[in-house]
Order: sequence, then C-alpha cells, then structure tokens
Amino acid sequence: MMNVGIIGSGQLGYMMINEGRRLGNKYFVLDSNGVGPASLIADAHFSVDQYKEFVDKCDVVTYEFEHVLEEALLYAEDQHKLKPSIRPVELKKDRSLEKDYLTGIGLKVANYRVAHSFSEAVRYAKDFGKAMIKNSFGGYDGKGQTIYDNGNYEELKGEKFVVEEFVDFDYEASIIASRSEDKSFRYHDPSFNYNRNAIFIYNYAPIMPANMPDIAKKLMDSLDYVGVMGIEFYVKNGEVIINEFAPRVHNSGHHTLLGSSISQFEEHVRAITGIPISQPILYRPSSSINILGTKLSTDAWNSILSMSSTQIYWYGKEEIRRRRKVGHVNVTAGTVEALIDKIGKIMEIIYPDGIENYI
Amino acid sequence: MMNVGIIGSGQLGYMMINEGRRLGNKYFVLDSNGVGPASLIADAHFSVDQYKEFVDKCDVVTYEFEHVLEEALLYAEDQHKLKPSIRPVELKKDRSLEKDYLTGIGLKVANYRVAHSFSEAVRYAKDFGKAMIKNSFGGYDGKGQTIYDNGNYEELKGEKFVVEEFVDFDYEASIIASRSEDKSFRYHDPSFNYNRNAIFIYNYAPIMPANMPDIAKKLMDSLDYVGVMGIEFYVKNGEVIINEFAPRVHNSGHHTLLGSSISQFEEHVRAITGIPISQPILYRPSSSINILGTKLSTDAWNSILSMSSTQIYWYGKEEIRRRRKVGHVNVTAGTVEALIDKIGKIMEIIYPDGIENYI
Repeated sequence: MMNVGIIGSGQLGYMMINEGRRLGNKYFVLDSNGVGPASLIADAHFSVDQYKEFVDKCDVVTYEFEHVLEEALLYAEDQHKLKPSIRPVELKKDRSLEKDYLTGIGLKVANYRVAHSFSEAVRYAKDFGKAMIKNSFGGYDGKGQTIYDNGNYEELKGEKFVVEEFVDFDYEASIIASRSEDKSFRYHDPSFNYNRNAIFIYNYAPIMPANMPDIAKKLMDSLDYVGVMGIEFYVKNGEVIINEFAPRVHNSGHHTLLGSSISQFEEHVRAITGIPISQPILYRPSSSINILGTKLSTDAWNSILSMSSTQIYWYGKEEIRRRRKVGHVNVTAGTVEALIDKIGKIMEIIYPDGIENYI
Repeated sequence: MMNVGIIGSGQLGYMMINEGRRLGNKYFVLDSNGVGPASLIADAHFSVDQYKEFVDKCDVVTYEFEHVLEEALLYAEDQHKLKPSIRPVELKKDRSLEKDYLTGIGLKVANYRVAHSFSEAVRYAKDFGKAMIKNSFGGYDGKGQTIYDNGNYEELKGEKFVVEEFVDFDYEASIIASRSEDKSFRYHDPSFNYNRNAIFIYNYAPIMPANMPDIAKKLMDSLDYVGVMGIEFYVKNGEVIINEFAPRVHNSGHHTLLGSSISQFEEHVRAITGIPISQPILYRPSSSINILGTKLSTDAWNSILSMSSTQIYWYGKEEIRRRRKVGHVNVTAGTVEALIDKIGKIMEIIYPDGIENYI
C-alpha cells in the first residue's frame, strides 16, 4: 500500500483513483483548478502552493496531464518520486523536441520542419503544398494549430512552429502501452480513432496492430519509461506514422474500462507502484464515445443504458461548454461490425442534431 | 444525479460507491462502526445518531447489510426513500419468518420446524436424523448455528430456533438478480459456490441456471423488490432448494466486477436510482476468491497479479483476524476448466498452509 500522488485533477486522475482504489493505496491530488473531478474522490487534495507538502506525503507521484505545474514536477523528480520521469514532459513542452526525439531514435513521423516565425512556417507549408502548422509550445485538442491548404490558413501567434507535411491518412489509430521498472512491456489492442475538428470523438478496438507495439516498446525503452503511454498514429496503406505521444493515460484508452481484463488506469497505477503489470485481454470488441459539450437528457441517458453492454461515465463537471469533455460512453459488442452499428446509434442519441454543433 | 445514502460502511458499500461513481451521483454513508471502508471513499459519512440528517440529505437510501440500525431503516422507509423496502429486512430478522414466507409463496426450502427452546430444537433434529439447528435471530457466516449428527451437536443459546433437515447437496449455488421500479427483471449467470465452515470461500460462473432465475423473479415480484438480491441454493440431482436470500448485493457476486458487462454493484445503484438496469453479459467464465484472515505477502500479491486476467480488491481494513474478509481476488479464463485450474493456484498462493488455518 502506497500514498500515490497525482498532479492534475481532471477526469483522467479521477479514473486513475477510481480504478486504483481496489489496490488499497491512498490517493492524493495536486489540484491546479480549484476542485476538479479527481479531488472530489481523492483521500485529500492540495492546492498548488502546497506542492512540497503534497510530494513529501507521497511515496510516488505521477501526472494525469503533461501541462501541469512545473515546480511540482521538478520537486517530485528531485525527490526520486516522479513516474514517469520528467523527461517525456520536457519533450512534450516543445513539439519540435518531440519530433526530433522520435526521428532521432529511428521512428517515423510526418515530414516536418521547424520555423522560428509564422511567416517562415507559412513558407515551409507552401513548400509542402498541404501542411499542418502547429505552435511548438502548448496546445492540445486542436488549439494553436492551423491547416495550410492551397494558400488558405489561419494566422497563429507564437515564436516557434512545427510545420508538418499533411498526411492524407486512411485512418487514425492509437496504442495504449505500459512499462514497469523491471522493463516489462504490455499493451492493449490498438484502436481505430475518429477525430473531428482536432478533437477525439470515438474509437474502437481491436484493429490489426501492424507494428504499433514495436514502436511503443522502442520509444518507452529509450526513455526508460515507467507507467502508461498513449501513442497516436496515422495509418496509410498499412504504414504507420507517429502523430504524437502522451506520457500518461490517454483519452483513447477509456474503452479499456469495459470489456478488458485490465484498464489503462489500473495498469498505470500498478506500473508506478511497482506491482506486476498485466498483458490485457480484450474480452470483446470495445468502444468509447466522448460526451462533448452537452448535458445528456434523461431520455438520452436512459436510451443509452437500455442498450446491451453499455456504461456511462459522467465526470461531474459543473460547467458544460462547447468542445468540453463531460463524460464518455463505453460499449462492447460480439463483433466489430455490431459494435460500429452501436456506435452509430449512440452518436445519434448524444448528438441528435449532429456532432458539429457540439465541437 | 442523485444523493444516494448507504446504511452500513463495509466492503459492500465501498464497492457500491466505487462502481456507482461513474453514474455521477453523490454517495453518503451512515457508519455504525467508526470509519469503515465505505466511509473512506464516500462524499460524506454520518454517525448513527445523525441518521435523520443523513436520510434527509439523500434522495434514495439503501443498505449494504440487513443487520443495521433499525431506526434509520424505519425513518428512511417512512420518508419513502428506502430501496429495497424494509419488508425483506423484517423477514431476515427472524429465520422462521423467512422460511415461512418462502414456502408461503410456493418456493422450495429444506424441510424445517420452528422450536421455542434449544431442547425442543434438539428433539426435532433427532426426528430428522441429521439437521442444522440455527438461532432464528441474527447470525450469519455460520454464527449461531450447529449441525446435529447422530446425537452430536454444540449447545446454542437462544429463544427460538429453526431446525432444517440436512440437505446432502451435490453443490451450493447462487444467483444475483435485480429488479427495478418498472418491474424489469435481470440476472447474472448463476455461480457454483464453495463454502467451508459456513463461510464463503470462492465461486465461479457460469453454471447451468436450472430454474434459479424463475425462483428469483417469483420472490422479487412477490416483494415488489427494487435493487439487487442474492439467493443461495442447494442443488441435488438437478433440483434447486433455497438456502436463504440476502436483500442486497452479495458476496457471491464479486466476480461480476471482472468479465461481466455490468457488476452487481452498478446494477443495484441503477435500480435504486431509477435508471435502466441491464441484462448482464458474462464475457468469459469468471471467479471470485475471498481473502480471509490473512494479509497477503508481497510475493503472494505479485504472484496473483502476474497471472493473466486477475485483480485484487483490498478493502483496507485495519484489523485482520481469523474468518474476517479483508479482500478478494477476481479472475477470468477462457473456459470453466481453465478457470478452476487458476482458482486452485490462487487458493494455494493465498492459503499456503491450507484454508482451514484461516477460517
């Protein structure tokens, strides 16, 4: 039994605590946003100015999001308590470092160039023909990025940009993998992911893994990584190109809460507390569908839960606004075909007038 | 979203909260034992003298154990908030009432007689030849009962006894069923149960249901029951005889936490909060093994979690004593045969010198 600290108090931390409960640990949260979902169910929560007290109280400290209080990360790292280490967070702070690191260890990303002004970025984009221009610092869920297409783009502010050649992918995919201190490596079956307006909408597993597990292992070994990582890919003609990685439990791993022998959240807690991680078995094809920017009506709630093998996770966020994740639906089915059919029905229930009105 | 009150603060309430979290309710506990497992993760807990405040704060009140503060049950019933109602609790307070009720609605129990002194009970037992003598009031996990066999028995204190003809059963089994306000009825696949020294050790599902679902439906309909109920059976030559029922989530339903599309705990929360209950799908054969009277060593813990498709639930109880449930292991396998093999291995890990030393 350990005191486990989580930096960040969103829904990822919340599910980490809820899934980690059975292991008997205590869970403490460093909450940078008032009282977030994770704080509501933690054994105790601390405000950001209490970060030293928080770290001192914990046997191990992890993060549920990589853009959190740097002092807390540094102090936990300094106390040899931070898992995963601060290294992947540093890579994530600057997209250009992430790209350079991935290519440096021989992994394939989209062709890219680093620009030090927006006008330079536009020049590179023009060279590529069609490209994504992304602010190198911060930004997630599509913030701080624009598509350059045939001279059309949105102006971005910033000092450094990564310009990626547009990948005309067949589909997007991801893998959730875990690695422990003793270098054991495990992974959940990769999933097909549907994103829209640069935000994750739904996914389902399993899909053919291609070489995604090998890529995950190579990346995690190179970082001597401890914990769960999510890696997003573009897939084109069976070839797998890394979009980006997340050094934490991942939005595309929520489906592991239903229909799997272990969830990504329990796997993460096991890895960072030094107990054996487990090769996940997917009992049946499984999907997760985000609830974004809408409070489900009672009818919608009941319609979804009346379907066979469904769960709703409601995060208890007070404010519901466009693009904000407020919950998700998990669903399984006997076959991938039947699952896709159920996903369609659930999407219609959640977004009766079309997803574009919520994101 | 509702305020859900739970009377009792043991591991059953604890799992109810943990599994009910995703539905977004608040959970409050009336704790009769200081600070039990459920109180540790509840949104708030109340001491027994605060029972009115507790009930007033809740939209619905349930119980995780039938032998709890009667004033609280009565007050919640009076406020039309108690689900299931107080009726099944009243039947459980006196074994003779339970037996009379079951036979009264045409369900089969072992032959029995009610005695008003222990000497009278012994006389009836002698007539049966071999019998169980049980104190009619209180008593669970084998407390307050003795076997009468060939003139041998233990002396029991009490005012009223139920004497049951001994059933030379082939095996014991149970069903976990649920019923909602709109009279919907659902059930998990029945399980084979292994009890020893009158305490539940492990079980596995599925087994052939025989007429267990019909029995459950008849009993629950007759009580206009809302929530989850566990019913224990003796099975002999395919014939099913009710041992007893529990008007709550049940020890033999812990396996529904792994390998099922819904756990008994979520099903119960759904039923009492008026959202649709779901017909459970068992993804794979699934088992639960109690951890009784022992603190698992780190090696034991790691050995169990190194097996495929296992989980440990540790209840966080401070005191570990003989016969006390301090956790359980869930495990699934591809076939019942493979599952039985895994159960054997796990039993050896938990109880290296034999289960009889722990119960």
